[in-house]
Amino acid sequence: MSSTEPLYFDVASTAPLHPVARQALAAALDEGWGDPARLYRSGRQARLLLDAARETVAELIGARPDEVSFTASGTQAVQLGLLGALRGRRRTGRHLVHSAVEHSSVLHTAERHEAEGGEVSVVPVDRGGRVVAERFAAAVRPDTALAVLQSANHEVGTVQPVAEVASLIGGVPLLVDAAQSIGRLPAPAGWSLLTASAHKWGGPPGVGVLAVRKGVRFNSALPADEREGGRVPGYVNVPAIVAAAAALRAVRGEAAAENARLHALVERIRARVPQLVPEVEVVGDPVRRLPHLVTFSCLYVDGEVLLTELDRAGIAVSSGSSCTSSTLTPSHVLAAMGVLTEGNVRLSLPTGTSEAQVDRFLSVLPEVVAAVRAPLGLDLTLPVGEPTAELVIDALGKRCPLPVIELAKRIGEVPPGGLVVVLADDEAARLDIPAWCEMREQSYEGEAPADAYGADRGFAYRVRRVS
Amino acid sequence: MSSTEPLYFDVASTAPLHPVARQALAAALDEGWGDPARLYRSGRQARLLLDAARETVAELIGARPDEVSFTASGTQAVQLGLLGALRGRRRTGRHLVHSAVEHSSVLHTAERHEAEGGEVSVVPVDRGGRVVAERFAAAVRPDTALAVLQSANHEVGTVQPVAEVASLIGGVPLLVDAAQSIGRLPAPAGWSLLTASAHKWGGPPGVGVLAVRKGVRFNSALPADEREGGRVPGYVNVPAIVAAAAALRAVRGEAAAENARLHALVERIRARVPQLVPEVEVVGDPVRRLPHLVTFSCLYVDGEVLLTELDRAGIAVSSGSSCTSSTLTPSHVLAAMGVLTEGNVRLSLPTGTSEAQVDRFLSVLPEVVAAVRAPLGLDLTLPVGEPTAELVIDALGKRCPLPVIELAKRIGEVPPGGLVVVLADDEAARLDIPAWCEMREQSYEGEAPADAYGADRGFAYRVRRVS
Repeated sequence: MSSTEPLYFDVASTAPLHPVARQALAAALDEGWGDPARLYRSGRQARLLLDAARETVAELIGARPDEVSFTASGTQAVQLGLLGALRGRRRTGRHLVHSAVEHSSVLHTAERHEAEGGEVSVVPVDRGGRVVAERFAAAVRPDTALAVLQSANHEVGTVQPVAEVASLIGGVPLLVDAAQSIGRLPAPAGWSLLTASAHKWGGPPGVGVLAVRKGVRFNSALPADEREGGRVPGYVNVPAIVAAAAALRAVRGEAAAENARLHALVERIRARVPQLVPEVEVVGDPVRRLPHLVTFSCLYVDGEVLLTELDRAGIAVSSGSSCTSSTLTPSHVLAAMGVLTEGNVRLSLPTGTSEAQVDRFLSVLPEVVAAVRAPLGLDLTLPVGEPTAELVIDALGKRCPLPVIELAKRIGEVPPGGLVVVLADDEAARLDIPAWCEMREQSYEGEAPADAYGADRGFAYRVRRVS
Repeated sequence: MSSTEPLYFDVASTAPLHPVARQALAAALDEGWGDPARLYRSGRQARLLLDAARETVAELIGARPDEVSFTASGTQAVQLGLLGALRGRRRTGRHLVHSAVEHSSVLHTAERHEAEGGEVSVVPVDRGGRVVAERFAAAVRPDTALAVLQSANHEVGTVQPVAEVASLIGGVPLLVDAAQSIGRLPAPAGWSLLTASAHKWGGPPGVGVLAVRKGVRFNSALPADEREGGRVPGYVNVPAIVAAAAALRAVRGEAAAENARLHALVERIRARVPQLVPEVEVVGDPVRRLPHLVTFSCLYVDGEVLLTELDRAGIAVSSGSSCTSSTLTPSHVLAAMGVLTEGNVRLSLPTGTSEAQVDRFLSVLPEVVAAVRAPLGLDLTLPVGEPTAELVIDALGKRCPLPVIELAKRIGEVPPGGLVVVLADDEAARLDIPAWCEMREQSYEGEAPADAYGADRGFAYRVRRVS
């Protein structure tokens, strides 16, 4: 392995095409190019290939073939699944329950449902990003049309208690977004609708899965045609579906051995990163987690800057948060967990990742983080200055992560027991200051409007120095 | 060419992958597999390829790149285009105008719009399948949110007067479904929204185009994400889009020469089929037509049976109608044109089709039609029996095409000027009997409930023998 060989650690965004998928795609472009709705030879041939692919996927997710429809993407599967189930259960009610850490496609669809008169309950998660099954079940009501819970979280890898939730919510259909897990783990028991995305398991882009259990009421949100059981309109992409099914069979065949290997590599990253980089928080459930995914947050730096610097070093990773992204919104997942939203780095390891590759990442990361932090002039031990009992830091107009940086720089100016008040109007401060306190074991004492401190806008975040 | 080489004459359903598309797909799977939303190297590379593909398609359809979004299919483009434009223009009104011969994706979406409280006007077509521009424009009202007109019809190849309609309907946005023409002809002037489907021009399946002119109000019907200008949610299929754009450039480059060649071959089919096969009607506008598509209907036979027999002879064609299909609905296009809906065969010739291939089809067709007709025991000249002034044919309970077959067999039993009354309860008779009269130059005198003839159901179709 050359030290400049690029490293791709972002399969949670998209996985490279599996060699089996590439072969299957080439073959299916030759043999399955016909319109599967037609009765002549090339059409019948395409139909046979499509049927076989459907059987493969059905078997691997634990469904009947007629329960499986193919979509054009995971997002389309989620949207059509949610909207179709909500429409199908309209007589029962218009109440939707989902966890706070679902994929944005779920959140966007729920927002649309709410805007159109539906009601939505969001179930919180613990600091590891996991819902408590009883708490999820308690959100379900007699008028609940649908519950939605991911199999595992896409940003932090935490595996959700799907089977437990399913057993507690009785007859309410449960849509399980299995996009991040289905290439590595069997589908969890208890799903009523299941969604997934082939390009995340090594299949080609352009294929999603929407499975709907027999008996679950479903009423297509889009004008249906005769295709895909009336659940997904539009021409069916047979060659890509054939390749997707072949890839799923291949990766699931490799999963047992590969999961154990990647699990150990991730364990190594989880242990080493906090030893190598100061002021880092590894987030997500340390035990009930995906084998190949790990996320950590580095205080005082912007995730996107970190990502850019790692890319310069030939390492592709993702960031669940960024203060400089177009939306200026910190990750809703990290916010719901109450962990640090700044300086976030997600690694998701592809099949075949070697220990040497992980070690190269671990050797590069400390330098990169240090270089990004250098201009901030931070002393990463708590500074001790002339102690005063109360200190007001005016960070109004300063963008995240500056308010937290100011707090970290100056908390040493008050003695233990003293109070620091940070005035800030960047929304991210509301998440980051409590998260910083949690991590640094300082005491967060809440927020108040900043006008008590003579400011015309923003909030005053109160932090009590503990040590 | 061997005489058993299979002939594929159904590119209007799906075209074989163009060699250029296959090469581009393979290259883009290598170079453009990354997530184009990511900032690291493989993501940026995918984004560059996507941008270039968008520029190519924009140039070839006469749009700006930011007006072009990629969808997963032509149907998805039509659905999202229609619904998005209707939502965007809701303040203006909820009235939708479309021609009677649009693709089923338009019809289904219009039905959904109507079911949800919208209003729909359907503009009729002439016997050639063409709308009259003034008549289309007359259907537009102050509360019309959207007008929809195909560039050319998918079943009969008739080219519509899009530019003329656009110039007559003022500020009302016009959605043009260009799926059948865009691989061969420039986009017609005057579109506000344009839709197309790559697998019909030799691109891979999984790619549609939805172009929306700057300034046209659009409000996504599905929960939007940040992708494709907020018009099409879901992961973007970069490799397929790259291949689709390459194919479009290739086929449009070949179009001038290829269109002339295929136009002549279709002209040959249009002229020869009625000479070779008795009782055939070639349908669709003979002049304002797509170069490569021709449709004809054979009296007394079922289109699907014909299709099956041609397939046995190694020839793949499509049928716009079938009495034995799962829906039992005759083609809405042929019905709107008032032409025969039975025994329908559509040929759409791929690039490179040779004269020898067309001749093979012309040599096979007469035998196939004759073989299918043989068991009916028809004498295909008008029979002359013992003349009576009025004849009642009881075809109640008989499925299409039997009522027309009975009519054809027995009309000779009345003298010229005499009346034949066909009692029938198959819905298709309502279309086929008048169409048969038009074709055979007999006089259709309308329908009445069959109870006047002692029947407990169905209708009495009155035909006056002219010759």
